[in-house]
Amino acid sequence: GHPVYRDMPTTIFEQMSALARETGAINLGQGFPDTPGPADILNVAADALLSRSNQYPPMAGLPELRAAVASHYAAHQGLALTPQDVIVTSGATEAIAATLLALVQPGDEVLVLAPLYDAYLPLIERAGGVAKVVRLTPPEWRITQAALEAAASPRTRFLLMNNPVNPTGIVLRDGELALLARFCVDRDLIAICDEVWEHLTFDGLRHHPLMAQPGMGERTVKIGSAGKIFSLTGWKVGWMCAAPPIVTLLARAHQFLTFTTPPNLQWAVAKGLAKPVEWFGAMRADYQASRDRLVTGLRAAGFVLLPSQATWFVCVDLPASGIAMDDREFCERIVREAGVAAIPISAFYPDEPVTHLVRLCFSKADAVLDEAVARLADFR
Amino acid sequence: GHPVYRDMPTTIFEQMSALARETGAINLGQGFPDTPGPADILNVAADALLSRSNQYPPMAGLPELRAAVASHYAAHQGLALTPQDVIVTSGATEAIAATLLALVQPGDEVLVLAPLYDAYLPLIERAGGVAKVVRLTPPEWRITQAALEAAASPRTRFLLMNNPVNPTGIVLRDGELALLARFCVDRDLIAICDEVWEHLTFDGLRHHPLMAQPGMGERTVKIGSAGKIFSLTGWKVGWMCAAPPIVTLLARAHQFLTFTTPPNLQWAVAKGLAKPVEWFGAMRADYQASRDRLVTGLRAAGFVLLPSQATWFVCVDLPASGIAMDDREFCERIVREAGVAAIPISAFYPDEPVTHLVRLCFSKADAVLDEAVARLADFR
Ligand SMILES: CSCCC(=O)C(=O)O
Ligand SMILES: CSCCC(=O)C(=O)O
Repeated sequence: GHPVYRDMPTTIFEQMSALARETGAINLGQGFPDTPGPADILNVAADALLSRSNQYPPMAGLPELRAAVASHYAAHQGLALTPQDVIVTSGATEAIAATLLALVQPGDEVLVLAPLYDAYLPLIERAGGVAKVVRLTPPEWRITQAALEAAASPRTRFLLMNNPVNPTGIVLRDGELALLARFCVDRDLIAICDEVWEHLTFDGLRHHPLMAQPGMGERTVKIGSAGKIFSLTGWKVGWMCAAPPIVTLLARAHQFLTFTTPPNLQWAVAKGLAKPVEWFGAMRADYQASRDRLVTGLRAAGFVLLPSQATWFVCVDLPASGIAMDDREFCERIVREAGVAAIPISAFYPDEPVTHLVRLCFSKADAVLDEAVARLADFR
Repeated sequence: GHPVYRDMPTTIFEQMSALARETGAINLGQGFPDTPGPADILNVAADALLSRSNQYPPMAGLPELRAAVASHYAAHQGLALTPQDVIVTSGATEAIAATLLALVQPGDEVLVLAPLYDAYLPLIERAGGVAKVVRLTPPEWRITQAALEAAASPRTRFLLMNNPVNPTGIVLRDGELALLARFCVDRDLIAICDEVWEHLTFDGLRHHPLMAQPGMGERTVKIGSAGKIFSLTGWKVGWMCAAPPIVTLLARAHQFLTFTTPPNLQWAVAKGLAKPVEWFGAMRADYQASRDRLVTGLRAAGFVLLPSQATWFVCVDLPASGIAMDDREFCERIVREAGVAAIPISAFYPDEPVTHLVRLCFSKADAVLDEAVARLADFR
């Protein structure tokens, strides 16, 4: 035996950001915006820092924020959660870790859909679980009953999924949501839904939580992230929502992982979640414009892209763009030769990777996107 | 089998704080100060929030903070750490969790010394380890070779310890540190040292890190907490220090637990750690005065206390004070009848608890301590 973490690399996002810092490349790798973030939310956080308590808030989160999360999901997604169903965490990563460590017992099988976020598999393994990977492929990335059946066994206890999906930019279709819900209900699975991109949907598409599907209210953990919603990725304020008795177990795991989250940031996020519906629409429109700008620029330079309906990401199809390199080679070369950092899609597969797609992040200022396009056009 | 967290209560600190909130009791339970915290550090944090990046900092922490932790320990404890030996975490609780999840493999035995902080055992169990408890008893709480030998086996791989010790207020004696170091070296153990109280020592006593003992530099994880050092318990900024290759494993675990910690708080803590030595002396003197005020008041009211050399805590000896209740009954009664919350020492033992001591927190304003003393005097 050896520690789970011994043979594991540093996460690809950190590797690429470190390389971008070293080389001075434009960083379209790790997903983060380059705006300062909403001024009113920043001001609430700064005021609270200077005028309210900086001591331990309640372990499950400030009552104001737990209530704000519940109200927000009622208003935006029609969910009927109580504040007691919400546990505040130090980012969505902590929520995923706490959920898996709370629920997964040695030998439990966890269904996951690849491409997948790189934290999932080490956390499942560390919790003693066994990941069963359903491999999805471009351009549709479609989830089928047959693929789920093939990966499941009587030991399957959980489905861990992401929607909207990083890195594909897909919003799951109604039929896929219904299929996943029926599958979970039929097999008595708990669904762990990483929905950090829930507000980042475009072209009029809206996110529908798996928790709202028939039979799913009692068997779903829904995970969200203030960093993604408010363009403040460094804040590390997230949450996990579930009905009792699941939420009780989640709180137990959380209390020994971080215990609490800075109260000034919690007050500010509570305020942010109560913003009018129009604010979220305008935010989506801004990012949609950034997506369109990057896509239009890259297309004009001869790149072929997969459609992106959500997240901060769009994928370049290398062979369709006439580029005879695999994704890792392309990313290695553009960061050093073109001064643009990106993420190879193969990093999202534990094995049998899709190797012809490269993820670019468009949550950047217009001038930054334009300069990245110019550099990539030159590189071709 | 069942989930580790199923039969686990909410942490005693949260239970007692919740009860204090409900009943309006003076909260001398959970350890936190009631001051606003150092104004200059708060201002750095607020300025950074409004004028610097709120996006993901590097996963291992801001370079400024990693360097500041290394320099701070060189200046204050004579340790020779590099910035690369330091990983910033979202509080010391995350550091303890990350360390155990990084290093402990199923079946590994971990020596712990009771009384112990209540996060230790669930985290060891969740990592697949087996805790072996060395039970210490008042008034000396002395660690002996014989007790260590009795608890160890060939499967013992780690020693997880706290120094200065919560809840006893003990600073380990030189002989105990030497004994623990020899024991770790002889048996090839890694020591995980929760040293969050390192700056909270009184009466001229100073903290000596186990890491500085002969042979321990390469086999120690040292854990610290800005919340404790700067009286800002809600900030949740901590760190873990170790030489390579251990520190590499710690970073791997950390990247999938919280990934990062808010950058504005990291900048502020880096600034704080560089304060002149006198600042730390003055801070210690302030808390020593608070300890003395609570102790003097309680003694005058007929309570008998164990000596406290460190931390924010002092223990009342119930039978010596002529009180015929065990610690849990006393805590239950004083929170409801006297309006003072405290922590029963039995909560720090997994079994065979010491039941005649109650912990009180003295990191409070003079008027709060005086009112608590008056209420407890009335209660007698
Ligand atoms: C934790 S860094 C990764 C951020 C992110 O969600 C991404 O780039 O995919
Ligand atoms: C995480 S709450 C506990 C704080 C503390 O260190 C204590 O009260 O012992």
